[in-house]
Amino acid sequence: MQTAEIVAIGSELLTPTKTDTNSLWLTELLNEIGIEVKLKTIVGDDELRLEETVRDALARSDIVITTGGLGPTEDDITRRVTAKAIGLELVFRDDLLDHLRERFKAFGYEMPERNRQQAYVIEGSTVLPNPNGSAVGMMVEKDGKRLIVLPGPPRESRPMFTEHVLPGLNETSGEVAVRRKRIMVSGLGESKLDELIAPIYKEYENPVTAVLFSRTEVEVQLTATAKTAEEADAINEELAGKIVGKLGIAVFSLDGEAMEEVVGRLLLQKGATLAVAESCTGGLVGERITEVPGSSDYFLEGFITYSNEAKTRQIGVPAELIEEHGAVSQEVAEAMAKGARETAGTDYAVSTTGIAGPGGGTPEKPVGTVFVGISDKEGEKSIGLTLPGDRHLIRWRTSQAALDLLRRSILRS
Amino acid sequence: MQTAEIVAIGSELLTPTKTDTNSLWLTELLNEIGIEVKLKTIVGDDELRLEETVRDALARSDIVITTGGLGPTEDDITRRVTAKAIGLELVFRDDLLDHLRERFKAFGYEMPERNRQQAYVIEGSTVLPNPNGSAVGMMVEKDGKRLIVLPGPPRESRPMFTEHVLPGLNETSGEVAVRRKRIMVSGLGESKLDELIAPIYKEYENPVTAVLFSRTEVEVQLTATAKTAEEADAINEELAGKIVGKLGIAVFSLDGEAMEEVVGRLLLQKGATLAVAESCTGGLVGERITEVPGSSDYFLEGFITYSNEAKTRQIGVPAELIEEHGAVSQEVAEAMAKGARETAGTDYAVSTTGIAGPGGGTPEKPVGTVFVGISDKEGEKSIGLTLPGDRHLIRWRTSQAALDLLRRSILRS
Repeated sequence: MQTAEIVAIGSELLTPTKTDTNSLWLTELLNEIGIEVKLKTIVGDDELRLEETVRDALARSDIVITTGGLGPTEDDITRRVTAKAIGLELVFRDDLLDHLRERFKAFGYEMPERNRQQAYVIEGSTVLPNPNGSAVGMMVEKDGKRLIVLPGPPRESRPMFTEHVLPGLNETSGEVAVRRKRIMVSGLGESKLDELIAPIYKEYENPVTAVLFSRTEVEVQLTATAKTAEEADAINEELAGKIVGKLGIAVFSLDGEAMEEVVGRLLLQKGATLAVAESCTGGLVGERITEVPGSSDYFLEGFITYSNEAKTRQIGVPAELIEEHGAVSQEVAEAMAKGARETAGTDYAVSTTGIAGPGGGTPEKPVGTVFVGISDKEGEKSIGLTLPGDRHLIRWRTSQAALDLLRRSILRS
Repeated sequence: MQTAEIVAIGSELLTPTKTDTNSLWLTELLNEIGIEVKLKTIVGDDELRLEETVRDALARSDIVITTGGLGPTEDDITRRVTAKAIGLELVFRDDLLDHLRERFKAFGYEMPERNRQQAYVIEGSTVLPNPNGSAVGMMVEKDGKRLIVLPGPPRESRPMFTEHVLPGLNETSGEVAVRRKRIMVSGLGESKLDELIAPIYKEYENPVTAVLFSRTEVEVQLTATAKTAEEADAINEELAGKIVGKLGIAVFSLDGEAMEEVVGRLLLQKGATLAVAESCTGGLVGERITEVPGSSDYFLEGFITYSNEAKTRQIGVPAELIEEHGAVSQEVAEAMAKGARETAGTDYAVSTTGIAGPGGGTPEKPVGTVFVGISDKEGEKSIGLTLPGDRHLIRWRTSQAALDLLRRSILRS
């Protein structure tokens, strides 16, 4: 399997406000033809570091792709330094100069002198035309290594890569296909999950298994390599089947469907409707549900009952109940869900109440104490949680727990 | 001037779907104390490449910061490999193990066996406590180079860095100070803004001015360089004063205060209360307001009136009004705000109604047609907008417009 490294060049990419995006689509396109991206480097307009980076990359990997630094200004050093790193000379191409002059003329300008340097290319390299800019790209092979030099702006580099580089790479990439399978899990900690499935995935070298921890759920990512995409998929499916069999309902989606999309699909399939009653999440549950296009087919309304008075007036939570158990309690969570469902006349309603912090915690109910409730035709249920994290994370995890409670209830009914 | 390199670790960061964000705030904080970030590397769970990367970085730069790969799962290799790269051993710390066990117990779990490895640290390193996660960080000096090993999740790595690493770096970072000032602007397009302020900032070489587009607002970023932070701040303040003077109420915050924080502060200062009525934003406005700690002091409740029936039942929007003008109309936006304010008994209420797409557009009201309304003691007002972007962006921009309408109303009353 061929390996690639990507080098993004430009001091602006080392500021807090600019980020390299070329490497994302490059990685996607390379993976699709079975070339693995092993490393990404972002380097400024620093000749020594850039030369060392490109040289190291060529030593480690089969393919090295650089983006940026091909412009006409002083600090565009890529042309000169990449040539040096691979041990080749730059040659001046009159035909490229003529083409540059014409290009400027076409826009009604005379070519500035400093654009001359864009007519220099690495000796023996294939010149990659750039219909969207003045900087041509270059592709050169030496000692079995392939160096591909692309301009920085994606609107220039992407068509250049897909039209003039990718087809050639595809031929040489040895018919290898790499396919990913994402198994999304809820209600299990990372360590607990790994204890359950490590014995299963450790028996496989292909696919490669990675357990990834996102803010709210754990993702089991399988990466299979085979001659064809179909074979790779089949390899993923075999292990995925065993993992899903072990984890059961804790698996909420395959191939990256988000929790709110899963819940929406299940509601649509049942032709059921939903309302929400939110306290500590303040609208987040409704926001996530309605982020899904077409959610108005099943989501009717929500009640952001942040104050106790709102809980009572909007959805009829008895003031005495709040008085007796506190707003953050199993009883109030269930009363909120019940009241929301009855007021809205929906098939399902979910509720959230909790202490998101940083203030408001007590010894009995510390920050992170959360209850999520659900009401459906079978009645009310609720779950109490003690969630770690800051305010943002506690709120997010609460919304995820509420949606997951809804998901499990729909699946079980 | 000291130089730093950042190494982001994790195979997921080499997939098209995940990107490293730690390096952005790390770069900003390092720049502020005059440390230049010369290189960023993103490397997967690949022992050889990671070791080579960290070793090269230590050879080139004064400070090397790694993020990620400190979790308890099989593929978390950072601890072992960074120790090897700097030529030190790992040592087991019983006190860290005890602390881990207690941490799990506090959340009602027993510590999984595989978390044991998180009690290994590099010999002679300063252990960086992690109140937000189970992985401690490490800082170690050798041969005048400083290696700093941080966990991946920003909510863990950022406080760890700012509290336990940055103060120490600050003392050793020498003379140059780089300081940023962020002027956040709403209700002005980029070109209009630039037309207004370019004549002002063009007269300054220091600070450097950049006009940046975020998803919802325009930011004018000033970057001043001086011997001391105080001098740099003074240089920023002079130009900032002129720019703010020119833009007036369009400036909603300085130094990055978010719109929802600004609105919350203004409501607190007035001792005023707020309710929201949301249709197309589905809870996003409430979610943003309640993301701010202490928001329960001014935010009482919200109404997610996604369906027309909910608009009428929850907050008394006349069915005929919806019939006559459509749910997406100035009249309904104002009726929603009025109804929310009267039902909740608050001083202010804001409302949103619109077509977020991708479906639901008509020739008269295409996708992106949005109305935001406000109600206060002077009555109702509303603004109609035609917003570009996808569903997510339209909803976000709608929430921003509603919050900005509230901000301007409070300031003018």
